[in-house]
Amino acid sequence: MFVILVYDTAVERNPKVLKTCRKYLHWTQRSVFQGELSTAQYRALMTTLNTTIDPEYDSIVTYTARSPDMIESSTLGITLGGPGDIL
Amino acid sequence: MFVILVYDTAVERNPKVLKTCRKYLHWTQRSVFQGELSTAQYRALMTTLNTTIDPEYDSIVTYTARSPDMIESSTLGITLGGPGDIL
Repeated sequence: MFVILVYDTAVERNPKVLKTCRKYLHWTQRSVFQGELSTAQYRALMTTLNTTIDPEYDSIVTYTARSPDMIESSTLGITLGGPGDIL
Repeated sequence: MFVILVYDTAVERNPKVLKTCRKYLHWTQRSVFQGELSTAQYRALMTTLNTTIDPEYDSIVTYTARSPDMIESSTLGITLGGPGDIL
């Protein structure tokens, strides 16, 4: 599946959230990651993040599609993610 | 079409970018908006943003799908967008 993940977490938890996201996805922009994951990988990512965040304060939103073909990506201005992150 | 928009723009241009995004989309999280737009509305949004940002410094990424049914959204922790923003 294709995954877009956006996070809004407290500064003190950001390093752990970033480390987990980087393990599974490519960095796109400030608080955004994207990538292709298996269902098992997606579940593992969500489980790890669930134990990392404070659910009363932090927020992580994921958008998933069965295939990257279902989503078109477009950039205005500079592309922040590396070449490996282009769809 | 269904649109997810993430922005990473300089602080001084944020108010203008936010105002434009709010006109067309619902706020989801920190630097993320989403919503359903016609092709004409999407083009108008992109044109306005293109004249607002500094293309050498700012970055706006959009993900579009033909229909919201193609994208599943899931939240860990708190939901920051209002009730009107739930998919």
